[in-house]
Amino acid sequence: MNMYDIITKKKSGLVLSEQEIRFFIDGFTKGEIPDYQASALLMAVCFQGMNEEETATLTDAMLHSGDMADLSSIPGIKVDKHSTGGVGDKTSMIIGPIAAACGVPVAKMSGRGLGHTGGTVDKLEAIPGLQTAIDSERFTEIVRSIGISIIGQSGNIAPADKKLYALRDVTATVDSIPLIASSIMSKKLAAGSDAILLDVKTGSGAFMKTFDDSIALAQAMVSIGIHSGRRMMALVTDMDVPLGSAIGNALEVQESIDTLQGKGPDDLSSMCIELASYMLLLADAGETLDACRLLCQNAISNGKAFDKLCAMVEAQGGDTTVLHKGFEKAAVTASYTAQSSGYITHLNAESCGMASLALGAGRETLEDSIDYSAGIVLLKKTGDYVAVGDEIAIFHTSDAGKLPTATEVFSSAISIGSEPPAKIKTIQAVVSETGVDLL
Amino acid sequence: MNMYDIITKKKSGLVLSEQEIRFFIDGFTKGEIPDYQASALLMAVCFQGMNEEETATLTDAMLHSGDMADLSSIPGIKVDKHSTGGVGDKTSMIIGPIAAACGVPVAKMSGRGLGHTGGTVDKLEAIPGLQTAIDSERFTEIVRSIGISIIGQSGNIAPADKKLYALRDVTATVDSIPLIASSIMSKKLAAGSDAILLDVKTGSGAFMKTFDDSIALAQAMVSIGIHSGRRMMALVTDMDVPLGSAIGNALEVQESIDTLQGKGPDDLSSMCIELASYMLLLADAGETLDACRLLCQNAISNGKAFDKLCAMVEAQGGDTTVLHKGFEKAAVTASYTAQSSGYITHLNAESCGMASLALGAGRETLEDSIDYSAGIVLLKKTGDYVAVGDEIAIFHTSDAGKLPTATEVFSSAISIGSEPPAKIKTIQAVVSETGVDLL
Repeated sequence: MNMYDIITKKKSGLVLSEQEIRFFIDGFTKGEIPDYQASALLMAVCFQGMNEEETATLTDAMLHSGDMADLSSIPGIKVDKHSTGGVGDKTSMIIGPIAAACGVPVAKMSGRGLGHTGGTVDKLEAIPGLQTAIDSERFTEIVRSIGISIIGQSGNIAPADKKLYALRDVTATVDSIPLIASSIMSKKLAAGSDAILLDVKTGSGAFMKTFDDSIALAQAMVSIGIHSGRRMMALVTDMDVPLGSAIGNALEVQESIDTLQGKGPDDLSSMCIELASYMLLLADAGETLDACRLLCQNAISNGKAFDKLCAMVEAQGGDTTVLHKGFEKAAVTASYTAQSSGYITHLNAESCGMASLALGAGRETLEDSIDYSAGIVLLKKTGDYVAVGDEIAIFHTSDAGKLPTATEVFSSAISIGSEPPAKIKTIQAVVSETGVDLL
Repeated sequence: MNMYDIITKKKSGLVLSEQEIRFFIDGFTKGEIPDYQASALLMAVCFQGMNEEETATLTDAMLHSGDMADLSSIPGIKVDKHSTGGVGDKTSMIIGPIAAACGVPVAKMSGRGLGHTGGTVDKLEAIPGLQTAIDSERFTEIVRSIGISIIGQSGNIAPADKKLYALRDVTATVDSIPLIASSIMSKKLAAGSDAILLDVKTGSGAFMKTFDDSIALAQAMVSIGIHSGRRMMALVTDMDVPLGSAIGNALEVQESIDTLQGKGPDDLSSMCIELASYMLLLADAGETLDACRLLCQNAISNGKAFDKLCAMVEAQGGDTTVLHKGFEKAAVTASYTAQSSGYITHLNAESCGMASLALGAGRETLEDSIDYSAGIVLLKKTGDYVAVGDEIAIFHTSDAGKLPTATEVFSSAISIGSEPPAKIKTIQAVVSETGVDLL
């Protein structure tokens, strides 16, 4: 077996065998297969694709290249949730506590943000003292006692994926559905949960810009999980506009607290009830989706979901005072007001994310530090009517010098017109083992 | 401009600009663009192709990466001929002298053989004392005085192509027509002739196995040459069976001498008259193809073509005695006889080449040395009737230990059946600026 023949085979549109895929991943991870052969194969995959078996094998090979979490000491069906990344997406901090409050254990490893989308670990670190670098023993202990812990991904989860992704990132081979699906799922499977709910974002602020691609990605990931013996579901949800009103780390934690206290924005609140309900359904915590919805709503109204967040923050060393009294405000705030009257016909999520980044809320390279107080609060969103001078958003930052660029980027995100735009459904499709349900 | 965007553009099927192609070739040659990005682009080109302008620009960028011959001090229209490589293809040693005898200057740089096809330089070196490493001043002087010189390619012709080809060879990106065409033509254009006749081989012994691919390659190369202001023609010729009867270096020189003396095998002799006639036509040495044919036939019958070969060998330091008295015979000769009776329905050219290689006639790696006396003389070819025990071929080698392998390989080349096979035309199509003529 040699790499030249494997490249030739995929280039010709043939199906690679399990042995060939493992030969590639093993050799590449060990540095025995050079980058130039790997990138040629990746480009051939971009054109010829991979079938379900190939994609599952690729995932499995990457999964076994590093550490795998063992959650067997935690009783019950552990459920994980993964979002493909969106602007203002703080759902993990809300639905994790809801699920835990309903008796479903949540042992979640999250990533950091890069570019225009934030990461849950960065957001949690806006809470003073909170630790996300926690060893696996303490992690499982917290989940066992409290029912939930959210930590950062350990260094040695799927190193093959890490190396392969770095190569894809510089060779224009990122946008291949089997490669994206196997990259995400190798890390999710390594995290060890029994069931995984996927939130596949679609629209202008998402990695997948079209609905069809989002469905295909959801199907590919569900298939990989099923191949690996996990319970799987995926929701395809809108990311044309930011989710909720807050963008930026402390601002998003605050909005998560508000939502857990029943005071969150409507779009975010109903999205979180839906996501949490599907998590409960996957864990057999309710017989029907409606029964699960009721359990989730109760967990918010009786305060148990918020209590779970507080318990988790405390267990991970965080200062729970801010959860009750709120975060310190940013040094500088500034209003962004409407320049013309009419309906907001579009609020580009990606540009909103870029504007928040310009205010200091994210990092452009992995070495950058984050201004936790920075970000944007949207007072108006797509479909709202505004008159000239109405406040559309409030910018938060520690550095007034960042306002001009942020204002310029944010301006480009907004379109105002005379007619209200058509409504976009938040949850557009449910993908499971049995097929696709369009909503 | 950056390589990531260039890869993305080609991957999406868009046309690369002149600036982008030159940026790639310049950066890659200087080592500024890493191999893994180059191989991703090459694979994208394999899928998306390149149009005529892109291919011409790629060729020009590779051509200008190294030395270019200046033949301007040689009067007249200099004509070069290039074959894509075949088994038993000794035409350069025959048609060069014919063209020179008809007053058309031939300044030819040739390659060495690798794998199952031989190279003209290796064949010429079977002549004791003959030098093929000759500096450009002496080279042009020989062409000016005698009308012909055939030397090896200098080290610094199209180094970009050399580097790119080495990468293509290990990343399964060789079989792309724009990449093949630009690779060949960058070296041919650097050799400096005003007109180029291409002999594109097609069939089992050729790099291009199908007629359609051969036509496409011929068209791509003719287009590149026209873009570069050269006179161009291409013949698509059969390489399903070896050309002539001799395979192997000294054996092929001997057959070339025989052909220049009017005693060569019919297929080789008529092929050479055709190729030489097209060279004359390109150089305006005759008004019609028929007139050129007559000139070529006369150059053989009056001995002037053979005299040119002798003059060239002498000018390049070779011993002309062997041209008149013949080469020393190989130490070992052995007959290959028919195992069954019937018509030879197929004689696979590539396998014949491999059998000759097994006898010591070629090199498997560039470091191997060549047994000049080794090779095969075919006594029967496709279409001939044989009875059990009839001699089909005679093997020549210095090492009797090589006979068993050669015999085994040669056996696999021959099919014998009860019906004679259909005749295959030697010259199948002529490709010029104005289009394709099927013959």
